[in-house]
Amino acid sequence: MNSDELAFKLHEQYGGKIKIVLRDSSELDKEKLSAYYTPGVAAVSKAVAADKSLLPKYTWTNNLVAVISDGSAVLGLGNIGPEGALPVMEGKALLFKRFADIDSVPIVLNVHTADEIVAAVRAIAPSFGAINLEDIAAPICFEVEERLKNELSIPIMHDDQHGTATVVLAGLINAAKITGRKLSECKIVIVGAGAAGVAIAKLLKEYADPRIMAIDSKGVISRDRTDLNDSKKRLLEFTNQANVSGPMQEVIAGADVFIGVSAPGVLTADMVKTMAKDPIIFALANPDPEIMPDVAKAAGAAVVATGRSDFPNQVNNATAFPGIFRGALSNHVRQITDQHKIAAAEAIAALAENPSVDEIIPSVFDDRLVPAIAAVIK
Amino acid sequence: MNSDELAFKLHEQYGGKIKIVLRDSSELDKEKLSAYYTPGVAAVSKAVAADKSLLPKYTWTNNLVAVISDGSAVLGLGNIGPEGALPVMEGKALLFKRFADIDSVPIVLNVHTADEIVAAVRAIAPSFGAINLEDIAAPICFEVEERLKNELSIPIMHDDQHGTATVVLAGLINAAKITGRKLSECKIVIVGAGAAGVAIAKLLKEYADPRIMAIDSKGVISRDRTDLNDSKKRLLEFTNQANVSGPMQEVIAGADVFIGVSAPGVLTADMVKTMAKDPIIFALANPDPEIMPDVAKAAGAAVVATGRSDFPNQVNNATAFPGIFRGALSNHVRQITDQHKIAAAEAIAALAENPSVDEIIPSVFDDRLVPAIAAVIK
Repeated sequence: MNSDELAFKLHEQYGGKIKIVLRDSSELDKEKLSAYYTPGVAAVSKAVAADKSLLPKYTWTNNLVAVISDGSAVLGLGNIGPEGALPVMEGKALLFKRFADIDSVPIVLNVHTADEIVAAVRAIAPSFGAINLEDIAAPICFEVEERLKNELSIPIMHDDQHGTATVVLAGLINAAKITGRKLSECKIVIVGAGAAGVAIAKLLKEYADPRIMAIDSKGVISRDRTDLNDSKKRLLEFTNQANVSGPMQEVIAGADVFIGVSAPGVLTADMVKTMAKDPIIFALANPDPEIMPDVAKAAGAAVVATGRSDFPNQVNNATAFPGIFRGALSNHVRQITDQHKIAAAEAIAALAENPSVDEIIPSVFDDRLVPAIAAVIK
Repeated sequence: MNSDELAFKLHEQYGGKIKIVLRDSSELDKEKLSAYYTPGVAAVSKAVAADKSLLPKYTWTNNLVAVISDGSAVLGLGNIGPEGALPVMEGKALLFKRFADIDSVPIVLNVHTADEIVAAVRAIAPSFGAINLEDIAAPICFEVEERLKNELSIPIMHDDQHGTATVVLAGLINAAKITGRKLSECKIVIVGAGAAGVAIAKLLKEYADPRIMAIDSKGVISRDRTDLNDSKKRLLEFTNQANVSGPMQEVIAGADVFIGVSAPGVLTADMVKTMAKDPIIFALANPDPEIMPDVAKAAGAAVVATGRSDFPNQVNNATAFPGIFRGALSNHVRQITDQHKIAAAEAIAALAENPSVDEIIPSVFDDRLVPAIAAVIK
């Protein structure tokens, strides 16, 4: 049975992936109901109303993340809307539970402008302990996240940006080590300048300030372009300092690292052959990567990573986000910062004690991951 | 230990009342994750995006109710805001689970105008299978519920209105039987013209068209009043047909039924003595009723009900809402109508095979309630 068939079978069998149970599994008699609900709960509610910092002490928000999406940029499916996105978001809630024992509620939004998304999330925010924004299209995702981080006092992270960037950095730290490079001296070409590409570029800049070239579907992002949105314009502050234009074939020549968060087939064997010796290829388009691993290897790649679980070196945000949110909730962190992401990437990289070309970072099933990451989110 | 002390003890011990677990309790290996999440889930998402009616087949919405409040009229506490309201809403989620095995997520809103509440609920609505509005102040609650019912295709019920009205009607059906009355011939005085009072009046009108007088904090609702909001003006279409004014002492004289959803002490023994023979008293203010049961009995009341679990005849919406939503979800009902509420009230009343003055309706712990009510919500 392939994964599509198994997906339909399991979704039909269980009719959904998560459910609610009571934390107190003892028999709920009249006396207990009078404490959990009226009249006893009134005293707890009064205490919380007087001091909102008591919310995590007395409510499930202490372990609760909202997974929020408007369904405008669902992985591999694009703009499929809130209903179509719900099975994916419920799947994310399953990952939160399975990997980090975090309670998570999928919230899909029937609105799509930045103003409307911000208004809806702001309105429901007191219900949650943290917010995972998911699969919201660029560039709206940048404005939504920035405004919500400024307005709310609970941790907020757009996982497509920062979970991805964290795991990419973790993988690059070890890939550079294996190939005898310093990241700060690398020339890195990032193809795809949406949520993930922009966040990867920013985190690499913050961590090692390498030479970065960013490429979108129209070509290299350069000062000569007149079609750039604000987030791409900001990339120009620290990418493509030589203001190179031209086709990807020219830009990729001599590059140490290729990071693709774009589309299948973007990178060819001929291009890989023009890269620096022992190049590092992260071909993360899902499910079909920018170049197939065997093709990249045959063309000389030293390390190849993809987003898939059926090849070596899966670079997937599921490696990072459970631990990041586990730490944020357990350690009462109010903002997830660049320093947190860098610390998380270093923690992930450090778990691969003897990284090799076929195992640059631990599998998402490595149960050391969540505690190791959570420990540095503080 | 009193209920306040037990409430703090239990809330501290468990730090919240509900949590998420996975429906599939088997080990989630790589293969299953590939079906529940990427890449397999994409096929399910595509199917749902193409046909939204598949949502309950493949997602947890098939058993999911949002309990939504802005915290503006929390039972016995008033306008305590979203954070203060959350322990109560989480308590309601506990009741949903305990009594009807319904998954329920508390959503507290940081907005308070009708426009903002409607916008927020509309935005998140695709995430849920049904919506229970809770503890939203009148008259905003009326507009919010009406607009959402018109705009959304999932069942929506403001429980403070309709859950309460349903249980009151159930109790009155049997109280009338016990005292040898026809409801259609009764004079009924309702004190309190907020969410509950208005809904009770409307449902009684629909069911039996009795003579109804409604009283708010300013006195009898009559055509002479110039301070009435829209919901109270609409009450004039079928209450106080004789356009009586004057103090409550005069209005209550000769009444068969008193229904209080107001404040402690509103009804005195002297007033009860002026009512019709064997009067019926529903003193539902919580936690302190409009008149204490022993006082009412001593003054001649035949049947006395309160909202409390420590007196006989608890009239509490927890008797109705679990079964109503159980039926709505299981039977794929899109709108909860007056006919549903009347059928639910009759089902509740019918469960008390030999109703007596001290047991007009079954206890909320009667496990026949939910299936009996759910069966008529279709």
